[in-house]
Amino acid sequence: MSQIPTTAKEKLINGFFRKFPGDAASVLNGFSTEEIIDYLKRQDQSVSKQVFARLNPDIATEVIDLMDNQLFVHIFSNIDAYLGARLLSRLDKEKAQAKTALLSPTLAREIKELMSYPLDSAGHLMNPMTTTFHPENTVEEVLKRLRVLGDRRIANIYVIDDKGTFLGVAALQRIAISEPNVKLKDILQAPLGVINALAPVEDVVELLEEKRIIHLPVIDINNKLLGVIRNGDLVAASKEEATEDLQAMFGAGREERALSKVSLAVKNRLPWLHINLITAFMASLVVGFFEDTIARITVLAVFLPVVAGQSGNTGSQALAVTMRGLALREIRIGQWFKVARKEIMVGLINGLAVALTTSVIVYFWASSFGLSVVIGISMVVSMVIAGFSGAVIPIILKSLGQDPATSSSIVLTTVTDIFGFLSFLGLATALADVLNIVG
Amino acid sequence: MSQIPTTAKEKLINGFFRKFPGDAASVLNGFSTEEIIDYLKRQDQSVSKQVFARLNPDIATEVIDLMDNQLFVHIFSNIDAYLGARLLSRLDKEKAQAKTALLSPTLAREIKELMSYPLDSAGHLMNPMTTTFHPENTVEEVLKRLRVLGDRRIANIYVIDDKGTFLGVAALQRIAISEPNVKLKDILQAPLGVINALAPVEDVVELLEEKRIIHLPVIDINNKLLGVIRNGDLVAASKEEATEDLQAMFGAGREERALSKVSLAVKNRLPWLHINLITAFMASLVVGFFEDTIARITVLAVFLPVVAGQSGNTGSQALAVTMRGLALREIRIGQWFKVARKEIMVGLINGLAVALTTSVIVYFWASSFGLSVVIGISMVVSMVIAGFSGAVIPIILKSLGQDPATSSSIVLTTVTDIFGFLSFLGLATALADVLNIVG
Repeated sequence: MSQIPTTAKEKLINGFFRKFPGDAASVLNGFSTEEIIDYLKRQDQSVSKQVFARLNPDIATEVIDLMDNQLFVHIFSNIDAYLGARLLSRLDKEKAQAKTALLSPTLAREIKELMSYPLDSAGHLMNPMTTTFHPENTVEEVLKRLRVLGDRRIANIYVIDDKGTFLGVAALQRIAISEPNVKLKDILQAPLGVINALAPVEDVVELLEEKRIIHLPVIDINNKLLGVIRNGDLVAASKEEATEDLQAMFGAGREERALSKVSLAVKNRLPWLHINLITAFMASLVVGFFEDTIARITVLAVFLPVVAGQSGNTGSQALAVTMRGLALREIRIGQWFKVARKEIMVGLINGLAVALTTSVIVYFWASSFGLSVVIGISMVVSMVIAGFSGAVIPIILKSLGQDPATSSSIVLTTVTDIFGFLSFLGLATALADVLNIVG
Repeated sequence: MSQIPTTAKEKLINGFFRKFPGDAASVLNGFSTEEIIDYLKRQDQSVSKQVFARLNPDIATEVIDLMDNQLFVHIFSNIDAYLGARLLSRLDKEKAQAKTALLSPTLAREIKELMSYPLDSAGHLMNPMTTTFHPENTVEEVLKRLRVLGDRRIANIYVIDDKGTFLGVAALQRIAISEPNVKLKDILQAPLGVINALAPVEDVVELLEEKRIIHLPVIDINNKLLGVIRNGDLVAASKEEATEDLQAMFGAGREERALSKVSLAVKNRLPWLHINLITAFMASLVVGFFEDTIARITVLAVFLPVVAGQSGNTGSQALAVTMRGLALREIRIGQWFKVARKEIMVGLINGLAVALTTSVIVYFWASSFGLSVVIGISMVVSMVIAGFSGAVIPIILKSLGQDPATSSSIVLTTVTDIFGFLSFLGLATALADVLNIVG
């Protein structure tokens, strides 16, 4: 496979791929699947592996699907079992099995085992355990094994008994300073945390953040050590979790990626758009309730987007800050009053400021003192309600055991739209004659 | 509970504080500053330290401000210099200096040095270096020092020369398997990454994610080793960065926390609300342009929120997914066409589906075939435009060197509102007579 690069151009590309596999993968992400396979074929095996491992997961899956068995074996021999399983589990079950059968028996077994865990479980994130020790092993024996392993980084010495039951870890630091004849059972420590292979990734991220764990041992229900989730994968999982909320908030689901298939995007987003449609028609109902007023004073329709927009924005700001506080665990459910009080105050102050600007503009735009008073008052009212709702809705949803990210923004939009229209059109209707607002 | 005598109750609280300092801090966050100080005073020094370190930073700052010097010294002696500096730098400069002067000279010097770095710099995140070695040190000498340090976790042996210049690291694993008389200079390795103390936290996070670094050495411009950013702080910084985008997208700034002061929230959010006001009035201009049509067909005003809402949502979904792709580095600027093509397709399919539902509802609601055709067509048009805009706007902003989080959503709302109103009211005006839509 490793054709020797002939031209200077090939050499340049080769050097770029070798030196910056991440950037190379990023460039390749923009190419067609066939082109990517072509490029991978023209690199040394070690280089194509590095680049392949960094491709966008969706694209890497397409590449696997399309490449011939020879290239597959080249790239997948010695692949991280964890990465291999992640990618293969995105293929059809039969295809994945056929591909896995091409690999060495050990690797194939590891990959199959990992693939048996659900996509969002700790088991799916772990690297299968390869280096473990027995409690009767001495420090000297450990050091001998470490010498054989060479530069492969080991962070902790994991100790299991004959049945594979996880007993604890011996820190490398402890190993280094102990006498050669000391047995591992005498320097064993309980790990900072362990996790069951079937636990959701959410729990993994929680452990990482709360206990500041660097490597997390994964066990089964019988306390058998199955593998370890390494720091890099922990960090990546944490970042994915943190950024998922953003998508979930707008009803784009948690699985979709920027380059996912159109069908996945439609499937994930359409239900939410339909739920939103209900909300929108509820807002329409409110507006429809005041159709007579609008028929008399058409200019009200012109300023509807202003009131709805500002209260929507105020609500979103409060929601974003509160959601982040919940995500970073800086606030608890019990603190809802403190957060709500703050947001009411912020809504009031911002509302007064924005209402003043708006009233002045509307006064000159529509030459109506009455209308500028109505829009000013309704702005303050709806922005206070929006601030309060933005703070309280995610906290309530969380206390009900709901995911605040998925449902907050839809509930919030309903509330801000309805109260925005209601306060503006309601006030206009009530005060139309008093303030002499005429269309 | 109330029957339990005070001492037992105190013991219970004490046990809870000791065992779950994180949860205890979370509970205390909801109390008044005076109550928190009172609770901290009633705990052992070691326990109050643990709990204090986990308080919300805003609240911890208030606590420092209000507590007496005795409690301050109790909690701050042996504090992580990094944490101490972070909190003290939130006080007035003079107050911070007065408090720092109460501490031991070494700690005071470390804290002062850290406080000299900007809040969002690598220097501010680091722990000052305490344990370093010389290239002529032998493995035996290192092990001797490690024995003295006991269980304090060391990940790498950092080697500097007489002038403090950073030479490299010796992995603990390497130390463990080397002969006692080997000198550090012979087993030195280049670190996976280093960072300048003045580099922004963003760069720190980028290094963490790209090179999967566990501990990051911090140097000054002369290559002098200043400290190390530890894994836990790296992970926390990464998560804060990732969740900041959410707030920035809604114009709530990057610094605000759920329990920040009202004044900070107003200062951060008000400018954005005013920019948004311009957007809203631009949308009003569009609606105003069709005032005559609305005066004839009032029911159009009723359905305005539906069109604007759906195109706004479609745009937000595309924006959220694209922003996440950019944040996770799954897509590059050059891939704008691929992403845009996907979002246009998604907008088209979802648009057709939503338009169908909407048209049916509107047909029965307003008993107007013409209106249901107009709203259906305008929905498809505006949702395709919204999908395209949601994908392209953040990518364009990024390619212009702007922060896509801060500006995308405002530009997007402008685009989706204007095109939503324009397509709906424009079509209605053009086709009013043809389709026999009458108010």
